[in-house]
Amino acid sequence: MEFASYISGFTDGEGTFSISFSLRKKFTLGLEVRPSFSISQHKRNLETLKSIQKYFGVGAIRFSKRDQNYKYEVRSISDIVKRIIPHFERYPLKTTKTNDFRIFKKICKEITLGNHLKSGHLKGIITQAYRMNESGKRKYEISYLLKLITR
Amino acid sequence: MEFASYISGFTDGEGTFSISFSLRKKFTLGLEVRPSFSISQHKRNLETLKSIQKYFGVGAIRFSKRDQNYKYEVRSISDIVKRIIPHFERYPLKTTKTNDFRIFKKICKEITLGNHLKSGHLKGIITQAYRMNESGKRKYEISYLLKLITR
Repeated sequence: MEFASYISGFTDGEGTFSISFSLRKKFTLGLEVRPSFSISQHKRNLETLKSIQKYFGVGAIRFSKRDQNYKYEVRSISDIVKRIIPHFERYPLKTTKTNDFRIFKKICKEITLGNHLKSGHLKGIITQAYRMNESGKRKYEISYLLKLITR
Repeated sequence: MEFASYISGFTDGEGTFSISFSLRKKFTLGLEVRPSFSISQHKRNLETLKSIQKYFGVGAIRFSKRDQNYKYEVRSISDIVKRIIPHFERYPLKTTKTNDFRIFKKICKEITLGNHLKSGHLKGIITQAYRMNESGKRKYEISYLLKLITR
């Protein structure tokens, strides 16, 4: 399917697979794990994002006033597992973003199994997540997060 | 063909269609018109560029020490007309880069017909080229180039 392969090419250029962490006092381990697949585009390319959203059938498009960008984003773990991951297994990435996807997929599987709620597994998730997105910026040092969940 | 569609998606994110102008005293109109199709990537993605080069069967890959990038580039007008343009006609872009491609294609056709050597046509080429690459930086003001060829 042509559009499917197009999307993988476009994602290799413009897409992001990310696993972020937020401090949540009410969570057992004090940490929330949030997976996300997203593609940001200048507002002139909103239609392209809408076609991609339609193709996947999940996710939302939001506008960021600050950088005049629209961002298509899928955050729901079940949508990611059912729609996003199978797509990129069938239509593979070809840049080193493949590495991000591989880790992303592994962590999403762990989340599905509920392993992110267990201290030992969560450490592994954090360590792997911090190997993703070579150019990404992290709010917390990895050492800070690891210490947090071993209190 | 899956890789073909992938390349169009990747190009929509990472590719550039450009028409640049250089002052050349020995040229009849004093100006050289240079079309180029290119994709730049961090050196970690050299293999992706090599696959794309292999697919098109034309163009060269060069390394830029300054930004640690490799650039796959096709400059030959005949390679562009025979290999690059037909690809993007068959596997269309989907962002506003389509507009750049449309102008690029039109100007390449003019060059093939030798119209860039005629003052009147060259003005049209310059005017159209300056509507491309919204984010691109130009060495010369359009007014400067237009004045140059009407001396």
